[in-house]
Order: sequence, then structure tokens, then C-alpha cells
Amino acid sequence: MAQSSVNNGVNVEALLAAREALKGAPEAAKFTWRASCKWQNGTHSNTAVQGFHGLGQEQKHKTEFTFEADHPEVFASEDHGATPVEYVLVGLASCLTAGVASVAQNRGIQLRSVEAKLEGSMDIQGILGIDSDVRNGYNDIKVTFHIDADASKKEIEAIVAQSQKRSAVYDVVANPTNITVEVA
Amino acid sequence: MAQSSVNNGVNVEALLAAREALKGAPEAAKFTWRASCKWQNGTHSNTAVQGFHGLGQEQKHKTEFTFEADHPEVFASEDHGATPVEYVLVGLASCLTAGVASVAQNRGIQLRSVEAKLEGSMDIQGILGIDSDVRNGYNDIKVTFHIDADASKKEIEAIVAQSQKRSAVYDVVANPTNITVEVA
Repeated sequence: MAQSSVNNGVNVEALLAAREALKGAPEAAKFTWRASCKWQNGTHSNTAVQGFHGLGQEQKHKTEFTFEADHPEVFASEDHGATPVEYVLVGLASCLTAGVASVAQNRGIQLRSVEAKLEGSMDIQGILGIDSDVRNGYNDIKVTFHIDADASKKEIEAIVAQSQKRSAVYDVVANPTNITVEVA
Repeated sequence: MAQSSVNNGVNVEALLAAREALKGAPEAAKFTWRASCKWQNGTHSNTAVQGFHGLGQEQKHKTEFTFEADHPEVFASEDHGATPVEYVLVGLASCLTAGVASVAQNRGIQLRSVEAKLEGSMDIQGILGIDSDVRNGYNDIKVTFHIDADASKKEIEAIVAQSQKRSAVYDVVANPTNITVEVA
């Protein structure tokens, strides 16, 4: 495969250069991501994302991104936005998909289409406090990729496996992450 | 405190009725949440959320919610949307905030305002593959609530603690969750 003709829209050269640069400047590799949430009414909230810290200084997205979240009507709520647990699926889907594009680019494989279907199963006896042996969160999450690319099934599976290995959100969900909750 | 005069917009009576109803119908408590992600170009994807399964049948949100995700310009990307790891913060913030409103309502405490600031620290030496001892995901996440309510600091802290105890997204992030990734 001629790597020069492959274009998945990922600037792998820049990423590889960043990797080399950060090897000599580990402090610059420390990032802080932020979100700011305002309660609206009931279970409805609005969360804004714009600024973050990285490469040794304050950074920000070109625009502020805002997200409405709510519970659906079957939970006696008003369904003003996606359910919080669905946002976790959005993060996982988009992280693995960005990884697939990046790894494919690095391996010189042209992608034509990538779709991921996610399903997360949850027993709401947990969050309702019916059974303390039932966890609040997902029992398991299944991700199924449909990928059309100039590659064999085996090569595609290897791309997905490498994306999973390097995915930040996969790691956060699959493994324990320390959370501190405080009241100011 | 006169519970009757408190209105945080949460229908606690309906939730308590649902809890009683589901005690006798555990199958109905099994939910499946879904998301469908389409790669756009580079690290940019679009994820849609609408249908889910619960209470023994197919359900759906009133509208389809769609989310653009991308990496920022400092990662040599085009910044078409929030970063996947920021979506995790959105889910965590909105889940804990919905819980605060629900618990306050159940305890007869009127909320005036609730804001949550989240910060997640991450060393990108992990995702860049510089140091295999550095994890890909967040090292830790800090959530700080600013709450104005008809309640003492101690009562407010107890509300936040109970929200955390019953939060689905808190559980998913704090504890390991099984994820299966497949290629169709």
C-alpha cells in the first residue's frame, strides 16, 4: 500500500512530531480537561466545555460547546437532552472512532466508512435503590464496528484493537478512575 | 421544612411509585442505552442518540440528539466538537447534578442554584505511547459543587454524597466496567 496516497484526514506526521517533542518535555504532556454544569430544573442541566490546559499553557476550543442533559419521560422527566449515561457512550464511541482513523492513517490504510454501534446494559434496580447488590452503572457495554476500508478483515481488526489499546475513554470506563466530589 | 412547598421540578412521587412497581417486575428494570457513531473525517465523528430499551419495551427520546466530537487544534485536528474525554465530564456532571435535584426534592429542600465545576487531569504520554506506565485515561477527576439552597452546609453535603452514591455515571467512571469491542 502506498502510504502517500492514503488520506483519512489525520495529520499523523504532526502527532509523531509531538510525540518526539514531548519525550523531552514531560510537563507539557500534562493536560487538564474541564466542564462547567448548571442545573436548569428537575433533572435538566446544561454543561459547557471550552477551556483546557495543556502544552504548558491555557488552551481553548474555537467555540464553546454546550450540552443539554436530562432524564427521559419514562423516568417522569422532561427529556430536554440526552441521558447522562448516554454521554458516556458518546465519549467512548468518538474516542474509539478517532483512534481507528489515526491508526489506519499511520498504517497507510484508506478508510471509506466507519460506523460504531454501542449498547450499554443497565439494571435500574441499582439507581432506584431497590437492590444494593445491583450496581448503579452499566453491567457491560458492547461496541460493534462496521468498517469499509482498503484492508483485510484481519487488518481492520488489528486497527480497532490498537485504537482500543490507546483510547483514553476506553481506559476511563474499563478501569477505575479516582473521582473527588466536594461542596465549595 | 414544609415538603409541600418545595419544588425542584423533580417528580419524586412518580419515582417512588416506579421503585415500588419495579420491585415486583425486575425484568422491566433492565435497560439498554444506545448510541450510533459515524466517522466524518480525521478525528471528527458524529454520534446520534435516540432509541433505548426499558420497562420491557422499546422507548425513544422525543427527538434525536446528535453530538459532534473531534480533537482540538493543539492535537493537529480541526476542533469540530468537544473532545471525547470531555463528553465523559459532561455525563458525570449532569448525572451528579440530576441526582442533587432529586435527592433535595425527596428531602424537602428547595434548591436555588446548583453549579458543578469539573477538572480531569490526564498525562498524554499515555495516549501517545511515550511511556507505557502512564495510563491513557484520567489520573483523577475533581468535581466541585456550588449550591445555593434552603439548607445548612451539612445538609447540602449530605445531598451531594447521596447523589454520588446513586449515580450511574459516577459508578461507571469510578469502577471497572466491562467493554467488548468487535468488528462486524
